Amino acid sequence: MVRRLKMMGICGTYSLDSANGRMLEIVSDLLIDHDIDWIVWDNQANPLPFVGEEGCWDHPNVKKYKELANSVDAFVLSSPEYHGTMSGVMKNSLDWLSFDQTSGKVFGFISTLGGQANTTTLNHMRVVSRWIHGISIPEQLVVAKVKNVFDDEGNISDQDLNNRIEKFANSLVSNTRKLRL
Amino acid sequence: MVRRLKMMGICGTYSLDSANGRMLEIVSDLLIDHDIDWIVWDNQANPLPFVGEEGCWDHPNVKKYKELANSVDAFVLSSPEYHGTMSGVMKNSLDWLSFDQTSGKVFGFISTLGGQANTTTLNHMRVVSRWIHGISIPEQLVVAKVKNVFDDEGNISDQDLNNRIEKFANSLVSNTRKLRL
Amino acid sequence: MVRRLKMMGICGTYSLDSANGRMLEIVSDLLIDHDIDWIVWDNQANPLPFVGEEGCWDHPNVKKYKELANSVDAFVLSSPEYHGTMSGVMKNSLDWLSFDQTSGKVFGFISTLGGQANTTTLNHMRVVSRWIHGISIPEQLVVAKVKNVFDDEGNISDQDLNNRIEKFANSLVSNTRKLRL
Amino acid sequence: MVRRLKMMGICGTYSLDSANGRMLEIVSDLLIDHDIDWIVWDNQANPLPFVGEEGCWDHPNVKKYKELANSVDAFVLSSPEYHGTMSGVMKNSLDWLSFDQTSGKVFGFISTLGGQANTTTLNHMRVVSRWIHGISIPEQLVVAKVKNVFDDEGNISDQDLNNRIEKFANSLVSNTRKLRL
Repeated sequence: MVRRLKMMGICGTYSLDSANGRMLEIVSDLLIDHDIDWIVWDNQANPLPFVGEEGCWDHPNVKKYKELANSVDAFVLSSPEYHGTMSGVMKNSLDWLSFDQTSGKVFGFISTLGGQANTTTLNHMRVVSRWIHGISIPEQLVVAKVKNVFDDEGNISDQDLNNRIEKFANSLVSNTRKLRL
Repeated sequence: MVRRLKMMGICGTYSLDSANGRMLEIVSDLLIDHDIDWIVWDNQANPLPFVGEEGCWDHPNVKKYKELANSVDAFVLSSPEYHGTMSGVMKNSLDWLSFDQTSGKVFGFISTLGGQANTTTLNHMRVVSRWIHGISIPEQLVVAKVKNVFDDEGNISDQDLNNRIEKFANSLVSNTRKLRL
Repeated sequence: MVRRLKMMGICGTYSLDSANGRMLEIVSDLLIDHDIDWIVWDNQANPLPFVGEEGCWDHPNVKKYKELANSVDAFVLSSPEYHGTMSGVMKNSLDWLSFDQTSGKVFGFISTLGGQANTTTLNHMRVVSRWIHGISIPEQLVVAKVKNVFDDEGNISDQDLNNRIEKFANSLVSNTRKLRL
Repeated sequence: MVRRLKMMGICGTYSLDSANGRMLEIVSDLLIDHDIDWIVWDNQANPLPFVGEEGCWDHPNVKKYKELANSVDAFVLSSPEYHGTMSGVMKNSLDWLSFDQTSGKVFGFISTLGGQANTTTLNHMRVVSRWIHGISIPEQLVVAKVKNVFDDEGNISDQDLNNRIEKFANSLVSNTRKLRL
């Protein structure tokens, strides 16, 4: 019997009640349809401390976070673009990962922007995932002018974006199967 | 009478008692010799919250931080390289700045690394400073194999590095004078 | 009497008869209005060889190119985005510059794209200009969906883009005055 | 019977008689030991024109280059760092590839530097390979102070570097097998 794959979402906004959190939810619905087990880290419910903050090294949330990261085959990172790159919340969350949790695992990336499209946040997250020996899929999601993207129910009406989300999820699944099973 | 210039250090480690904090101190000694007023933000003494954390928007430290940033002509950013780019502490500190505090101001960059040299952290901090309409000096400080750089008194014996620090400080002063006075 | 400033355009398309060449022309019209002397390098009329090609080191066009670059105070680089970064034509043109021609000089950047906006080409050209000790202005021009931007006379009807071009030229002039006079 | 894999080297120096060409040779020896078929593009023997140069679109070398690229499963890019990023020769060579030749194929990267280590050239080549839908392996080779690396026979005595080369080749082979067979 084939092992079930497991993936973890990490969000660049503090709360998951955001466009970035919603993007993770939409992607995870597709992943679950592919029989992927899914978990998402919620910084608001379980705050990670800043690296270097007093008590950070033995913080129970850090321990829990690392255990979850240890258990997965792939990561989906969803960050707003703040000042041209990923948020501090996202970078601090990544700072708590290391080779043990990430080597040889698969990464996919989502960036939301208030204004026009840009890939710098994605490029910079790719540098991080490479550094911790992850393998990044080429498909990526840029969600520009993010305020206009979701309707009142949090759904996306732009069919082109929906297609890209589907291709993103499919690539994540098929590449993780090839690389991890 | 010529106005005195003022510069602010921002550190990518939570505590200033670090190689990054020490680099800011060494640079500031040279800047003060040039009649520059100097302040440094201390995240340990005055923690900035994460962007999005409850209470963050009215946090007194954010207000204080922005007021100090408003008052200066130039910024010196000193970050460790964590996972190939600036630390989460540095990025979160930058997330709290905006155009009001930074447009047309001068930026200089320092990166420390445990291992061999790299400029990615510097490149990424340059993207941020550009985004908030700062002007970056070309001189920059890469401090590789940082554990071996300081003696017991925190001094640097490597004369080549000391020369580069002096050129860095000189460039910061002369370009800030040209652009801000 | 104040010295006249001189600026040089470098184009990432082989021919200047392109959107990138046209962007340089539009910017140069504004610069000339500011009493800036302007020259543009034309790779089609005066091909630069590839670095390393037989005869390249003594090529008369390389000599001419370096002399022109020596004579200016600032550079405007205009590149298409090919495969996510500047073109080979642009990079090879930059490879022929060195510190002698560029240290302490001012750089401004333009990127055109067939599709949606992106700043990676600009970010990468900034890395190059930093490396050769140039100082880059924060203002930059991203011209997305470039096929729709120009009318039959090569003019731009998008008033927002025209405003950004004007701010770009103004910043180039004022910063070059501050840094070079 | 399992299909034999085929890989292609692309060199950022015009001639293969260079540190970059030698690195490709050393890597290819290891790949051939793994039963990989290997080809390398030689710009000096078969010059690619600049994109946009007269006659470029129907140039026989472009046709030959694309046919070779079509036939392979993976690419190894070896570039000098010129002015902080890949050479113009490398970028122009990449400009001639497109999705047809590269989608879903595997990429590995080598950067040589005259001075100290840096990963910017590698980061920028990764952006390109992502753009043309390649999948990049995390292992990469930075060859700093390249003048001191090779002995008179072109061999590398630095055992640490030799180990990294072996891991690089192994990763290229194992990931290409997983992703392409």
